[in-house]
Amino acid sequence: MLNRYSKSFFQHPHLRAAAAIANPRIGHARSSTSSNQRLKPALQPNGLASTPRRSLPSFPCVAQHAARESRILSQRESQSSSSPDPSSSGPEPPYARPSPSTYQTYHHAEPFRLTYSDTPLPELDIAYETWGTLSPARDNAILLHTGLSASSHAASTRENPAPGWWEKFVGPGRALDTSQFFVICTNVLGGCYGTTGPSSIDPATSEPYATTFPVISIFDMVRAQYALLDHLGLEKLYASVGSSMGAMQSLAAGWMFPGRVGKVVSISGTARSSPSSIAMRFAQRSVLMADPNWNGGFYYDRLPPHTGLKLARQIATITYRSGPEWDIRFGRQLQAFPETAEQRTPALCADFLIETYLDYQGEQFCLKYDANSLIYISKAMDLFDMTESSLVELGLSPIGSTPPPTKPSVQARLHPPPANPAPHLPALAAGLRPLAHTPILILGVQSDILFPVDQQRELADALRMTGNSHVSYYELGGVWGHDTFLLDEQNVGGAIRGFLL
Amino acid sequence: MLNRYSKSFFQHPHLRAAAAIANPRIGHARSSTSSNQRLKPALQPNGLASTPRRSLPSFPCVAQHAARESRILSQRESQSSSSPDPSSSGPEPPYARPSPSTYQTYHHAEPFRLTYSDTPLPELDIAYETWGTLSPARDNAILLHTGLSASSHAASTRENPAPGWWEKFVGPGRALDTSQFFVICTNVLGGCYGTTGPSSIDPATSEPYATTFPVISIFDMVRAQYALLDHLGLEKLYASVGSSMGAMQSLAAGWMFPGRVGKVVSISGTARSSPSSIAMRFAQRSVLMADPNWNGGFYYDRLPPHTGLKLARQIATITYRSGPEWDIRFGRQLQAFPETAEQRTPALCADFLIETYLDYQGEQFCLKYDANSLIYISKAMDLFDMTESSLVELGLSPIGSTPPPTKPSVQARLHPPPANPAPHLPALAAGLRPLAHTPILILGVQSDILFPVDQQRELADALRMTGNSHVSYYELGGVWGHDTFLLDEQNVGGAIRGFLL
Repeated sequence: MLNRYSKSFFQHPHLRAAAAIANPRIGHARSSTSSNQRLKPALQPNGLASTPRRSLPSFPCVAQHAARESRILSQRESQSSSSPDPSSSGPEPPYARPSPSTYQTYHHAEPFRLTYSDTPLPELDIAYETWGTLSPARDNAILLHTGLSASSHAASTRENPAPGWWEKFVGPGRALDTSQFFVICTNVLGGCYGTTGPSSIDPATSEPYATTFPVISIFDMVRAQYALLDHLGLEKLYASVGSSMGAMQSLAAGWMFPGRVGKVVSISGTARSSPSSIAMRFAQRSVLMADPNWNGGFYYDRLPPHTGLKLARQIATITYRSGPEWDIRFGRQLQAFPETAEQRTPALCADFLIETYLDYQGEQFCLKYDANSLIYISKAMDLFDMTESSLVELGLSPIGSTPPPTKPSVQARLHPPPANPAPHLPALAAGLRPLAHTPILILGVQSDILFPVDQQRELADALRMTGNSHVSYYELGGVWGHDTFLLDEQNVGGAIRGFLL
Repeated sequence: MLNRYSKSFFQHPHLRAAAAIANPRIGHARSSTSSNQRLKPALQPNGLASTPRRSLPSFPCVAQHAARESRILSQRESQSSSSPDPSSSGPEPPYARPSPSTYQTYHHAEPFRLTYSDTPLPELDIAYETWGTLSPARDNAILLHTGLSASSHAASTRENPAPGWWEKFVGPGRALDTSQFFVICTNVLGGCYGTTGPSSIDPATSEPYATTFPVISIFDMVRAQYALLDHLGLEKLYASVGSSMGAMQSLAAGWMFPGRVGKVVSISGTARSSPSSIAMRFAQRSVLMADPNWNGGFYYDRLPPHTGLKLARQIATITYRSGPEWDIRFGRQLQAFPETAEQRTPALCADFLIETYLDYQGEQFCLKYDANSLIYISKAMDLFDMTESSLVELGLSPIGSTPPPTKPSVQARLHPPPANPAPHLPALAAGLRPLAHTPILILGVQSDILFPVDQQRELADALRMTGNSHVSYYELGGVWGHDTFLLDEQNVGGAIRGFLL
């Protein structure tokens, strides 16, 4: 799975190898000025011997980008020469080689309409996996929504025994108890793990969509999931559950299909993307799109923008954890090298463990995910806004049976009123009215800098203002930041378990 | 001056022009699918007319990088053809054309030793400006330290009437009252505005140092300033004042020269760079160094890494303000375009005002500052750590008269003890012992995400633990984040004024 979800990057054998390659000590010209072999005398133009001239520095942390490129090319060469299938020859991105046997795919053969486009997608594939057994009454299904970069593989299955991105939370006796519930997880629309996205083949051209793929919305992702649910004959979900971007989808599912969702769980999400989270994602997209390999999104028959994607992932990783966690975990520790003390001078490349950690996270991600998927899906997150005017502008409205209209209720707000209430709070409450009758769990984390706890309180307040008296709200402490939903089985899992019963 | 300090980016005429160039609406292929001229029918391999084929998308937000490159080249061509001096022909970075007449330069002709290098710098230039008049007793000098990217031009002078980066804080009756004090501000060691840095000529090679420049420390920056003070015959400062990286220098000055600094002001700084701030600066350096134009730092005779520098500045800008400020200032507003409503579909380039703001900040910065200076100076910030073991390891000790040793005093701590005291607090207090007798103002901002308020409290606590009973500590509210020191004349200025009297 995606390595952000892997347990310990220090345990990973590749890290040490990567660190050795990227040894930045030799990246600084003065790092061994006490060693004579690196100082060579130079003659000045006037013919006089000058002070020793410094050797030119090298930068392994930069050279690794070219090294990665060579590695990709040689891997692809050996693949294409060993492949008996001529159609699979030539460079091929690694994510284009999924193992379709490890997940199921629903092919939706009809045009699929989109929020921001007049032209529907001509067809749709949705990759999904399931855990547990559907009850005879078909009333125990839980739809689990993913964050930006995850696949449908939330937990290990017989077909794919590799640990999933939410392994500890899905299974018998776990937060999503598969001895009780039938859990479904899909790869999102726009993704690159089996569901239609920019890397998919456009039937009109027989080539990958690339950036001719339309801009998509969180609502589109949810409607794609409901196309699957219709196909599976699932009229009503017991619950819709998601964290991060998955929480956006979870809220959107409850909002679009109020009669088809029993309960909604939103963990570390938001109903209105804030400018600071947009800023963080904008920085990632900018870095990625500036990589010449991105080539306007048309890289599927050539080298992918692996360097831009690595740099983007480094920025993203900063937003997933918290400063206090890093202070406990890394502090100001330097990475260890088998060197003499003499050589331990700082370099322009990485010195501190926190830097090696970010480097490693980016390196692991950059060949496992499609750059265009990152762009499209992060854009969908930016565009997500459940304030009333935004929903009206998009022409969105709930589908099927809707609850009777309710008046916004200030009395129902259970939080102490915020000192500086956000001006958009009433509009958000008005937008969320279709959720007025759905039991909802909102869970936030105080150390989250990407979906700050203020947004969690705002969401709970807005929901309570709709008159919803079944809003459960928890805040977690701890230092794990946004990633808490991946790590804190006891508290996140416990809150979900309690709410679902 | 640097545009981060400019008042309103919306008032800037260039912005509208840039926004028009970078109009991202046309950057999305589906943005005008309702317009027939953008849809061209295509024949499928089977000879049947297919559904209309989408035109290829264009991305003005990416194309602007190449456009900037062309602009730089043509500007340089016109400069070199109009220049009568053959030595100035060829490409030349804009920051290599300062106006030396607008500041003074002290040439330090002796070798200058450095913290992390066995080889001293052979010589040193220090650019500086002054305001006010030195008293006959020479007892009214204030040394003002700058943040990462600022020049010596803190405020307008007769020689340079352009507003300085701290214009509102330096002048008669202002926070640094020039009718009372003689204020000195230098460009830091490693900078690119007149003081020796990586863009300076190495006398050993007659070429720019580039990345043969040694890694420098905050302590080196301060000792360079003291070389200037010695030259000016200033034995003792009335005060050392700085914000952000300037606060690090301010603390280091009081620490290294306890007998020569009357008072220390530290605004939104730290005595120990945290892993989260290192992470933010690492992301910036990584992006910059990945730009092929960076070329291992050797770009002074060719095109500079303007794209990498722009992207790095975008990341930095995110850390300078706060989410709540952006919510008030930008919210989810889209940038305005003279377009029909039909065309108002989202693009993969910028849509929201917050994105245009970051783009603009990066664009303005990327040709005004030296990329290598950013790398070296941000590295010096990362390396800054006044915990005892770190100071001992570097062999640093106070110079000249030192106060008598004091015992760390837990009793002197005036803050309520933190619930989870940082494990390094006692070591930091031990390291800060040379500051035990210096009156110090610590000022922090609650919305600062780069130098969080916890670090301000920690610094004040550690100083009080040295037995220092003259620690003034203020926290400011507001939404301006780290940039508060540039904006909040009333509260920041007021605290300084009160402390200096």
